[in-house]
Amino acid sequence: ARTGDPEVVYGAGKTPDQVVAILRTLHAQHPERAVLATRLGHETLEAVTQALPEAAVDLVAGAATLGPLPEPRGTVAVISAGTSDAPVAAEAALTVAVHGAGVDRVDDVGVAGLHRLLGVRDRLEDADCLVVVAGMEGALPSVVGGLTGVPIVAVPTSVGYGASLGGVAALLAMLNSCAPGITVVNIDNGYGAGVHAARVARQSVPR
Amino acid sequence: ARTGDPEVVYGAGKTPDQVVAILRTLHAQHPERAVLATRLGHETLEAVTQALPEAAVDLVAGAATLGPLPEPRGTVAVISAGTSDAPVAAEAALTVAVHGAGVDRVDDVGVAGLHRLLGVRDRLEDADCLVVVAGMEGALPSVVGGLTGVPIVAVPTSVGYGASLGGVAALLAMLNSCAPGITVVNIDNGYGAGVHAARVARQSVPR
Amino acid sequence: ARTGDPEVVYGAGKTPDQVVAILRTLHAQHPERAVLATRLGHETLEAVTQALPEAAVDLVAGAATLGPLPEPRGTVAVISAGTSDAPVAAEAALTVAVHGAGVDRVDDVGVAGLHRLLGVRDRLEDADCLVVVAGMEGALPSVVGGLTGVPIVAVPTSVGYGASLGGVAALLAMLNSCAPGITVVNIDNGYGAGVHAARVARQSVPR
Amino acid sequence: ARTGDPEVVYGAGKTPDQVVAILRTLHAQHPERAVLATRLGHETLEAVTQALPEAAVDLVAGAATLGPLPEPRGTVAVISAGTSDAPVAAEAALTVAVHGAGVDRVDDVGVAGLHRLLGVRDRLEDADCLVVVAGMEGALPSVVGGLTGVPIVAVPTSVGYGASLGGVAALLAMLNSCAPGITVVNIDNGYGAGVHAARVARQSVPR
Amino acid sequence: ARTGDPEVVYGAGKTPDQVVAILRTLHAQHPERAVLATRLGHETLEAVTQALPEAAVDLVAGAATLGPLPEPRGTVAVISAGTSDAPVAAEAALTVAVHGAGVDRVDDVGVAGLHRLLGVRDRLEDADCLVVVAGMEGALPSVVGGLTGVPIVAVPTSVGYGASLGGVAALLAMLNSCAPGITVVNIDNGYGAGVHAARVARQSVPR
Amino acid sequence: ARTGDPEVVYGAGKTPDQVVAILRTLHAQHPERAVLATRLGHETLEAVTQALPEAAVDLVAGAATLGPLPEPRGTVAVISAGTSDAPVAAEAALTVAVHGAGVDRVDDVGVAGLHRLLGVRDRLEDADCLVVVAGMEGALPSVVGGLTGVPIVAVPTSVGYGASLGGVAALLAMLNSCAPGITVVNIDNGYGAGVHAARVARQSVPR
Amino acid sequence: ARTGDPEVVYGAGKTPDQVVAILRTLHAQHPERAVLATRLGHETLEAVTQALPEAAVDLVAGAATLGPLPEPRGTVAVISAGTSDAPVAAEAALTVAVHGAGVDRVDDVGVAGLHRLLGVRDRLEDADCLVVVAGMEGALPSVVGGLTGVPIVAVPTSVGYGASLGGVAALLAMLNSCAPGITVVNIDNGYGAGVHAARVARQSVPR
Amino acid sequence: ARTGDPEVVYGAGKTPDQVVAILRTLHAQHPERAVLATRLGHETLEAVTQALPEAAVDLVAGAATLGPLPEPRGTVAVISAGTSDAPVAAEAALTVAVHGAGVDRVDDVGVAGLHRLLGVRDRLEDADCLVVVAGMEGALPSVVGGLTGVPIVAVPTSVGYGASLGGVAALLAMLNSCAPGITVVNIDNGYGAGVHAARVARQSVPR
Ligand SMILES: Nc1ncnc2c1ncn2[C@@H]1O[C@H](COP(=O)(O)O)[C@@H](O)[C@H]1O
Ligand SMILES: Nc1ncnc2c1ncn2[C@@H]1O[C@H](COP(=O)(O)O)[C@@H](O)[C@H]1O
Ligand SMILES: Nc1ncnc2c1ncn2[C@@H]1O[C@H](COP(=O)(O)O)[C@@H](O)[C@H]1O
Ligand SMILES: Nc1ncnc2c1ncn2[C@@H]1O[C@H](COP(=O)(O)O)[C@@H](O)[C@H]1O
Ligand SMILES: [Mg+2]
Ligand SMILES: [Mg+2]
Ligand SMILES: [Mg+2]
Ligand SMILES: [Mg+2]
Ligand SMILES: [Mg+2]
Ligand SMILES: [Mg+2]
Ligand SMILES: [Mg+2]
Ligand SMILES: [Mg+2]
Repeated sequence: ARTGDPEVVYGAGKTPDQVVAILRTLHAQHPERAVLATRLGHETLEAVTQALPEAAVDLVAGAATLGPLPEPRGTVAVISAGTSDAPVAAEAALTVAVHGAGVDRVDDVGVAGLHRLLGVRDRLEDADCLVVVAGMEGALPSVVGGLTGVPIVAVPTSVGYGASLGGVAALLAMLNSCAPGITVVNIDNGYGAGVHAARVARQSVPR
Repeated sequence: ARTGDPEVVYGAGKTPDQVVAILRTLHAQHPERAVLATRLGHETLEAVTQALPEAAVDLVAGAATLGPLPEPRGTVAVISAGTSDAPVAAEAALTVAVHGAGVDRVDDVGVAGLHRLLGVRDRLEDADCLVVVAGMEGALPSVVGGLTGVPIVAVPTSVGYGASLGGVAALLAMLNSCAPGITVVNIDNGYGAGVHAARVARQSVPR
Repeated sequence: ARTGDPEVVYGAGKTPDQVVAILRTLHAQHPERAVLATRLGHETLEAVTQALPEAAVDLVAGAATLGPLPEPRGTVAVISAGTSDAPVAAEAALTVAVHGAGVDRVDDVGVAGLHRLLGVRDRLEDADCLVVVAGMEGALPSVVGGLTGVPIVAVPTSVGYGASLGGVAALLAMLNSCAPGITVVNIDNGYGAGVHAARVARQSVPR
Repeated sequence: ARTGDPEVVYGAGKTPDQVVAILRTLHAQHPERAVLATRLGHETLEAVTQALPEAAVDLVAGAATLGPLPEPRGTVAVISAGTSDAPVAAEAALTVAVHGAGVDRVDDVGVAGLHRLLGVRDRLEDADCLVVVAGMEGALPSVVGGLTGVPIVAVPTSVGYGASLGGVAALLAMLNSCAPGITVVNIDNGYGAGVHAARVARQSVPR
Repeated sequence: ARTGDPEVVYGAGKTPDQVVAILRTLHAQHPERAVLATRLGHETLEAVTQALPEAAVDLVAGAATLGPLPEPRGTVAVISAGTSDAPVAAEAALTVAVHGAGVDRVDDVGVAGLHRLLGVRDRLEDADCLVVVAGMEGALPSVVGGLTGVPIVAVPTSVGYGASLGGVAALLAMLNSCAPGITVVNIDNGYGAGVHAARVARQSVPR
Repeated sequence: ARTGDPEVVYGAGKTPDQVVAILRTLHAQHPERAVLATRLGHETLEAVTQALPEAAVDLVAGAATLGPLPEPRGTVAVISAGTSDAPVAAEAALTVAVHGAGVDRVDDVGVAGLHRLLGVRDRLEDADCLVVVAGMEGALPSVVGGLTGVPIVAVPTSVGYGASLGGVAALLAMLNSCAPGITVVNIDNGYGAGVHAARVARQSVPR
Repeated sequence: ARTGDPEVVYGAGKTPDQVVAILRTLHAQHPERAVLATRLGHETLEAVTQALPEAAVDLVAGAATLGPLPEPRGTVAVISAGTSDAPVAAEAALTVAVHGAGVDRVDDVGVAGLHRLLGVRDRLEDADCLVVVAGMEGALPSVVGGLTGVPIVAVPTSVGYGASLGGVAALLAMLNSCAPGITVVNIDNGYGAGVHAARVARQSVPR
Repeated sequence: ARTGDPEVVYGAGKTPDQVVAILRTLHAQHPERAVLATRLGHETLEAVTQALPEAAVDLVAGAATLGPLPEPRGTVAVISAGTSDAPVAAEAALTVAVHGAGVDRVDDVGVAGLHRLLGVRDRLEDADCLVVVAGMEGALPSVVGGLTGVPIVAVPTSVGYGASLGGVAALLAMLNSCAPGITVVNIDNGYGAGVHAARVARQSVPR
């Protein structure tokens, strides 16, 4: 296989002690490559900071890494609509880095303010894969998909209320995008989008 | 009241003979003002053409009017995303005209081809109310709402398949629009959007 | 554009400190016009009261404004069904005021006590736009829509339990209203309804 | 038991021949009391007319009876919102009659035209039980329930399109009615409402 | 009208102080007849006990009454499936009493232990109306409806987990009952069932 | 493995010619054991009758077998609620036979007529596994599960209308049964229930 | 009946004191056979440990037994996909034991690591019934069902987020399994699966 | 941009004449590169065959191309579970070819027969991107994702009945896959998957 994915710990439902212990064990087994832990609550992030000073903690993503990041090959642009989408965008970006691709963050380019998005078209074109993160009506991937032919992974977020149905509205919108070739992952699943995008970027012909 | 709405016949579930008879009766009662019949199938459209030669039949809208249209006051721009949305846009446009406002049709300006939409910004600004018709991911109203402060009524259409759930995906997207002030009507309800928009346009200060 | 919308802060998911800071910044940038912050919890409302004594805090709406309200043009009547709908009605009313239209509040006119509603028909007719707020079965907009031809925006609320499905029952009812021309916003979205209604009222021919 | 319900044939999914044969058999077993067959399509209604000339066929209800109706005790008022609700109202009315209560039909009193409903308040009060039939937003039972304390059974119909979800919108509205004491049956189930209402009417103290 | 319903306070979303104050006010206005307050949490029940010693508090129902109960006319049997359904059954029973009918409680007669239910058939027949409370699969009303022709109101409860979907499974089951004449109220709505049943019982010919 | 399942053809979406050809091929490969084809429409059933005279066609089940049935081991009782459930019950029964167990059919024992069910308790107890087929409210498995400790597979059917949601109501009811140990298969999936039940019966200690 | 099921207490919604009291009472009535209590929270588990030292507490399952387990007959293999599924697998395993069958636990054999599952094929074949526990996409039962003809009960778990809809995604997947003969229980219902599987195992011909 | 996508006609809702005319026009504009038309019914396929003899018609995919296919760069393996999934797999494969990548078809490797899938692991590894098509429980992408690190696009199909909910069950399963990095498109959307996969393959470093 072209891959060689890192070890990943899914922190939801695990105690701080469990997460610290698993990180320590996996790092001992794979000291040459960063281990990633996602979905860490405040308490766990603090426990990791205390117990594993060499770990890198990402408070926005609610995630941590232990061990050196791989040399990046290719670039993934992580694009997000609003500030509430930041945790999911951060999870995607960190996942991309841990999986061996470079990251370009493009934030706050929601569809209700098109000029900001139109101002970064070059950065979209320069990436090997795009991760587009949006909640509420989930319109951003369609607009991005109309601007570029770079492969896109859309991530619906649970940002919203009422008829957003916990992110289902954004998910459905993205699945029904009129822009061709947009693929979608689960609600708030920055991790999954990051894995796919990093794989695509790493195997792309360098520009 | 400022209104004085016309008589309207909802043709779904009515036989051609019933529709012709109701149109004839309502026209006799209100000869000075057009009566509108919507949701007419092929057979009924033909029956109306035959039986009521003075009726105006709109094949795309699946609708017909009998009697003179009122003098238009104000303007409603009816904007649609794709060609499959044409019947709903046509129902909205005809409803606007029958309810006494002028119509400006802007078609095929879906979000995957932004330049076309950006090219008609003047027409958006010149209207008193916008009816924005879109199916699939229903993203168009959000983008339009970011371009202008004119009041918007969004109409989701049942265009799509699979996870579009008969228009529910577009409906949810529009209800969750991140652009402020967008209101929504039922799936495929060009009629309802047209009534609201015409009322707004007719009471607006002339430009 | 005829608009010129104010700055608005969506408080959900923001800390009290963040809300205070954003309000302060936006007010410094736009001292001549009220900035609006919505969806503020108890703690944030208190923090705003403490830190920004010149702010006007609306405890029922869970909202605050900083800076002078614009001179009202036109009138929006905000009509609500029951006492539990008060927070949403208050959010709508404050939004209308901040967006430059006058407000007439009509409360507790639910459909199970028709006489109260019939007693205020004059006030409905005197408005340029109606915002109708109701939870549970969401019937009020249909009844109001049968009484007047003034443009209506219906706001479903999450008031109810069991098969109200967090407001989805009221939302569906409003989308299917048999009264023509009713438009709908997201569940509990007093803000969105207020923006649309204020725009309509401000551009209406004065009575 | 106070009852003594008649035999009923559910015609959906049965061939014309099967329905005729079952009606004939049940009538032979219970010649003294009408047998009821519901949910009969055009073909079956014709077959019944041909084969059983003494049967009474109700084309609107899509139903037929064979044998003498019982002497009515008490009165059920069957109230409906729009003309499209007629088949369900007719099924309810016929079921009431077959189950031994008198029927008062009140049609076309939808909530968007309140004056018609307010004009029949006496007839509501004079009944022992009300069956209220409405589609689309299903608002009628709430309004009726605010006008009278007579026991109410609400019947949602599948009349509507888009977000009416085949009658689910009306069903949810009725289950969430803010008027106390309204009970509900399945979508389009005029039969079930008629059985309950007839039982209540028959056991009521005569007025 | 035959009715003359009591005043009722819906406690959900109200503070203990508000509930106490409303009870006091309504009791002063209607000293001759019990006022009912439902959906009271622990704190509110305690506040009522403290502030209104003459109030009768029902801890299982989460409800309270203030003032004398009316003389009962007719009988409602309140039947429940499991012990977890007790709060809803208690709310129904208290509502019946406050609305002027007698109550017969029949508990723990779930369908998985038929003999208990078969042992109380006499009590079912002796009632003027039945309120049948069940969660999970909601099967009890169908079985009761096969045993008697007494009018039935079914109350689905939110008891269950997973695919019970907060009571929707029981609600759907009851709406689809194969036993004729069963009517249904909202999930956990013992109050609504009690109002309907009391009205039916009070107007029934005494046995 | 204890099994040795027969070949099965799923006829839905296949042409009559395709079904005939596959049956012929599979029979040639396995002449010693019946091949089963399910979900056959009228045309296909006729084509099979014509082309494969030695095939056994089951018109109620919409199925056919070709080749000798295995010697039955153990017994499965297939229990159904109403006549409309017959096709699913027949599919289950034929599947059981083709998979090598004996079948006892118990029909028309719906929960609204308990005496019929109570009259066949011996047959329930004498079986090694029960397949319980019911539509509408899907209550039958719960009642059967309260009468016996024999393993039960419940099959919801799509019989019903409106809020039966194509069988989803019955499915949810069965998944939430208060009788312990009931397992469930897909809506109308008599085949799947038959496979499981036959496997259980065949491996059971003979009585 | 071949059964003779133990007494079971459903702990959800019961206080620690209530659970202790019921366990004590049932144990006194059935001292010869273990009583089972499920769905016990931390507090209740501790209360049981304190008050009933002879009880066996299963912290993972959130369950306890009091009294001697029956002699096992037959074997149920309980197979689970991931570590988060452990509580449900443990509930199933304990239920099997209390209902008189032997248990073989096979954990962490999710479909994304097939080799582990392929390595335990012998243990699958050696069981009389399989309980297969999986969350997220619920794919494990299909893969197991392709490997063996042993009867299978699938248990969807609520493990997952976003579009897992609290376990509904896994439930739907299992109901639609392309492997024949898979039956399904409610989300997280290890208890129900254990009862069915134990009954099957106990009546199976010993190997 | 690295792309340069071909023209594509979405045939659903268009008449045969319309499709022929659009194909002809687009081909005249882009004679050097194949135009693709998808979702063509029998009639339209025939009309295309008649009117445009040089068109290549794919009867399984319900699609046609006009003009020369581009030289393939990179390889997409299109993997499908069952024969009913063939139309969707064919649409994906044709789309890949028209968008300039090579195709390797791997059919009938559903999860209930793992050996077939395990036998083609080399072909999975040799591809630059995988399109995995499956209906019913939608388990195939998870299993494939456990076998390889090649980027995967999963396509749920509407194959199934009952609780498959028109493909929603498979869609949800794929969105919740426990194998990392799987992205998903709309139900039956072979086209969208093909566009994404072709883009990825074309930009991949040649092996
Ligand atoms: N944020 C995430 N969302 C979904 N899956 C994740 C996430 N983080 C990790 N995973 C998956 O969880 C697996 C580790 O699960 P565990 O062994 O329970 O920690 C990894 O191999 C990933 O496939
Ligand atoms: N296309 C439409 N969608 C929704 N409602 C409509 C439509 N056309 C007409 N109506 C409504 O149907 C009413 C007439 O219904 P009817 O009397 O049944 O013909 C009109 O007054 C309108 O309110
Ligand atoms: N329109 C209807 N809707 C619901 N149930 C009905 C209807 N008509 C008859 N039924 C029920 O169907 C039963 C007869 O069913 P069957 O024996 O299949 O004809 C009657 O006893 C009624 O309970
Ligand atoms: N974990 C569980 N899930 C579903 N049902 C259960 C569970 N545990 C016990 N039960 C059922 O609950 C009944 C006891 O309920 P209760 O009398 O309320 O304690 C038992 O007879 C079982 O049928
Ligand atoms: Mg967005
Ligand atoms: Mg669109
Ligand atoms: Mg209301
Ligand atoms: Mg209505
Ligand atoms: Mg129950
Ligand atoms: Mg049933
Ligand atoms: Mg799984
Ligand atoms: Mg599959």
